[in-house]
This record gives sequence, structure tokens and C-alpha cells, in this order.
Amino acid sequence: MDAPQDPGFRERIEKSFGRQKAMALIGARLALVEPGRVEIALPFRDELTQQKGFVHGGIIGMIADSACGYAAYTLMPASASLVTVEYKINILAPARGSLTARGEVVRPGRTLTVTRGEVYAEGGAHVASMQQTLMMLADTPDTRE
Amino acid sequence: MDAPQDPGFRERIEKSFGRQKAMALIGARLALVEPGRVEIALPFRDELTQQKGFVHGGIIGMIADSACGYAAYTLMPASASLVTVEYKINILAPARGSLTARGEVVRPGRTLTVTRGEVYAEGGAHVASMQQTLMMLADTPDTRE
Amino acid sequence: MDAPQDPGFRERIEKSFGRQKAMALIGARLALVEPGRVEIALPFRDELTQQKGFVHGGIIGMIADSACGYAAYTLMPASASLVTVEYKINILAPARGSLTARGEVVRPGRTLTVTRGEVYAEGGAHVASMQQTLMMLADTPDTRE
Amino acid sequence: MDAPQDPGFRERIEKSFGRQKAMALIGARLALVEPGRVEIALPFRDELTQQKGFVHGGIIGMIADSACGYAAYTLMPASASLVTVEYKINILAPARGSLTARGEVVRPGRTLTVTRGEVYAEGGAHVASMQQTLMMLADTPDTRE
Repeated sequence: MDAPQDPGFRERIEKSFGRQKAMALIGARLALVEPGRVEIALPFRDELTQQKGFVHGGIIGMIADSACGYAAYTLMPASASLVTVEYKINILAPARGSLTARGEVVRPGRTLTVTRGEVYAEGGAHVASMQQTLMMLADTPDTRE
Repeated sequence: MDAPQDPGFRERIEKSFGRQKAMALIGARLALVEPGRVEIALPFRDELTQQKGFVHGGIIGMIADSACGYAAYTLMPASASLVTVEYKINILAPARGSLTARGEVVRPGRTLTVTRGEVYAEGGAHVASMQQTLMMLADTPDTRE
Repeated sequence: MDAPQDPGFRERIEKSFGRQKAMALIGARLALVEPGRVEIALPFRDELTQQKGFVHGGIIGMIADSACGYAAYTLMPASASLVTVEYKINILAPARGSLTARGEVVRPGRTLTVTRGEVYAEGGAHVASMQQTLMMLADTPDTRE
Repeated sequence: MDAPQDPGFRERIEKSFGRQKAMALIGARLALVEPGRVEIALPFRDELTQQKGFVHGGIIGMIADSACGYAAYTLMPASASLVTVEYKINILAPARGSLTARGEVVRPGRTLTVTRGEVYAEGGAHVASMQQTLMMLADTPDTRE
């Protein structure tokens, strides 16, 4: 994996994550931030479930999308921000209990970065696999306009 | 579009949606239920945003996933339930303000159904496009185990 | 749909298609070129089949990928070329006989364009649906280096 | 990885691959067949190229689709056959020269199997990443009807 261009990437990502109100809404937190690799932990809460009582597939997508995006963001310069271009997720098993999403950079690029994510349930069940494309916006602040 | 096998499909879907606590958490509501076609409305709330103040891409995925899934569910027998196999979503533009997700069946099937979804912002901006695969579980209740 | 920036887009696309030796290998030809919309026809040949005698899923992907890419290319300036970033395709039914792939622009963009494609068999069966992302390379020739 | 249910899986897959005329058309051959893992080699030929002289993105998709599908097929009973439900592929770099596609099972299932594929060029460049869903057809011959 390429070395991060911004030595302060951990603090930058923690601050960015802290501004994601949607992550606070669902109760997700950053569990690991390494170059090209980020994990997000989601403790189980009944309000995250779908009609059968499993964690909603869209919630699984949310934490995988964020873990993959921040994995890409670790490798970017401090002056850049990034947007999700698209992602594809397979739900492999019903999601019971607390979850962990692991995002990893497959190929970093100047404009586009491709990542992959896995979501696991407590106990180790493999719940979902994601493949995602992100676009870097050079010299664009990662804050509200 | 095929006619629904279950004439009570509207009530069935409203009840199922009502059991999706994750939809209540984000404040989404069913806006339209027709054979092969469902819309979900999501009023804007600041707690749905990501670090730049737009609605989080994962939240966009959540309402599109649910709209597409329920579009498929309109055509299924009352005794069946369904699971999301996978979906792919392109984020086309930053999502500002309230959103509407429209799901539509592309090809209904005995085991697998393929759907498409679009997400629009108030004012009409096209925010996202989804393509999704669902699997019907015959004779499986759509409720908690 | 936006008007084409290059009034000579039809001839430009016919020439580009003519340089795609892979299209000649499988016997595909351009059937329609309109702003934001391209069709490719693929006459049936036994050498396009998989082990069960249907047209190979990868071949279906090839013509859908090209139809979608050229649909995007109709809207680009003559000095640009483009690359496929990614695509997702659902195979909806076994592909028997000759095929037509229709590509259409969903959202044209300065850097990224999103398209959709459908593949139909003779007789009208809906064989596949694609969603694709392309990146424009400004001031880059669409020819061999 | 689960052990194969059919001890004769290698021979079964070689025969099935031999019936894929589309693989012969492009000159692809089976390079590795292990439980849950298959590689396909594609020697470079000028007739596989797109307008810029790189191997066509659809051809890359063809060999990745087949490698992933046969990876899934290694784990299935001899009486079953399988169909591609959908795949998503990111093209990571222009494909120059000969290619190898590696397919691997992520999650085998009774009905659905999820796989991943990577395509590399000679010299090691990572050319593409795929995520794919397949459906097993129980008691269905893998031959022409």
C-alpha cells in the first residue's frame, strides 16, 4: 500500500467522521484507521432493524460505504475531499447483533480509487461484501460549504 | 407488469414497512404502493448528513434498497418474504434537502427478481440510480423469527 | 438529453467502432447512433456460445459495455476519449439467437458519465440490464498510442 | 473453503470449459482448477482489442465471469449446473498483453454463491476486480438442451 501523503491522516479522518451526523444517528464509531484500511464498529440497537429483526441491509451498506470511503481517504492529501461514485454490495447472510465493517483500498488513483469492504457480525459471520469507486476532489474542503 | 398475486398487497406492504424500525429511525415513509412500483419519501433532517452536510450516501442507499425491495414484494404471494441479494448504486449528485426513492420491477421471477431505483431531491435533481437483485423465500413469514 | 458538442459525432463513433477489433471478432455492428443513445446488433453465431448453447454472459456484457460507452461518447467533444470505469450487469434470461444491446446516458458529466443498457433477444425477450460508469479523458486521442 | 462434493470436479470443469465455444473464439484456456478457485489464461491477440489497442473491457469481463463461475462450480454436485445472476467489474488499468483471470468463492450457498475475481496482465499489473453472484440449478445438466 502507498504511504499516506498526509502524516496527520488519522486525526483528519477522526474529525471528518465526527462530522458525519448519520454515523452518530446509527451509533457507529471508528474502530481502526491505518493507511489504506479503516474499520467501523456498529453496536446492535433494535432501531437499526428491518421487518424481520435483522440489521437493515441499507444500514449494512452505510457502514461499509463509510469504512471503504475513509480507507481511500487515508491515502489522500489533506487539502482534498472525496465523494462516493458508486458501490455494489452483496448481502451474504442475515445480520444479527453488532457489526464490524472493514474497508480496504484495492487501487489508489489520482482521480479514482477502488476499494473493497467486508462486514462481519459478532461471532465472525461474514455478512456482506462491497466493491466501491470513489473520486478525489483536489483542493476541496471536506466541510460544509 | 404482472398483476399482483395477493390482492391485499398494499396493506401487507404497509405493515411490513411499519415493522422496519430503521425506516422510522431515519424518518422515511411510504409514499406510493402500486403493482411493481413503490416510492419512499425522506424529509430532510440534519442528522442524516455526512461531513459536508449532504444526505449520507448510505442513507440514499437505504431508501432506494427499501423502495426497490417493496416494489418486488408487491408482486409476491402473501405467504412469501424476500431478501436483498445485492444492489449497486451510483450517486449522481450531492443530495440536498428531502428525497424521494422510486423502486420499480425490471423482471419478476419465481426465485429472483431484478429491480431498479431512482432517487430524486426536491426540485427534481436526480441523485442516484440503483440496480438490485432480490430472492423470494417461499412460505416464509415476513416477521421476526 | 444534452445536445452533442461535436456535430460530427456519428462519423466519429462509426470510425471508433470500426477500430474495435473485438467487435469484429464477435460479429457485432453498430445499429443506431443518436445523441445519448446507441444500439449494437449481434447476429447469432455458434462460436459465441457457452457450454449450454446460449450466448456467453461475457459476450452479452461486451456488447452492452460498448453500446453504453458509445452512448456516452456521442455527447463528448471530438478531442476527448473515454474509458469504462466499471459496470454491473444482471443476466435476466438465457440468451438465444441474435441480440440487440441498447445503451443510454442516464447522467452526462464533465468527468464521469453514468449510463444504462438493455440487451434484448430476437422475439423481444429481455436478456440483460447494465448500469455503467465512464470517465472522460479530455484532449486524449481515441486511437492507438 | 468447503471440500468439493464431487471428487471428479476437475474433469467436469475441463469438459464444461471445452464446450464454451466463446472461450475458444477468444483463445482462452483453463490454467488452474482447485476447490473454490479457478484461473483462466488469455494470450494476447490483436483481434481482442478495442479502439485504443488495449484488450476490450468486455473481453476482460468474459474471462473474469468464466473464472468466477467455474470457481463456484468446483464446489457443486456433479448433477447441478449454474447460471450467472449478475456481476460487477471495475477496470483498474488499461489491459496490455496477455491476461490471467483468477476467480475465487467468497461464500458458497445452496442456491446462491458469491465470488470474486481479479484480472492481472503479464508483468503483474492489476487490471480488473469483479464481484459476482451465481445461482445453482439442482439436477440440471450442464449441456445443450
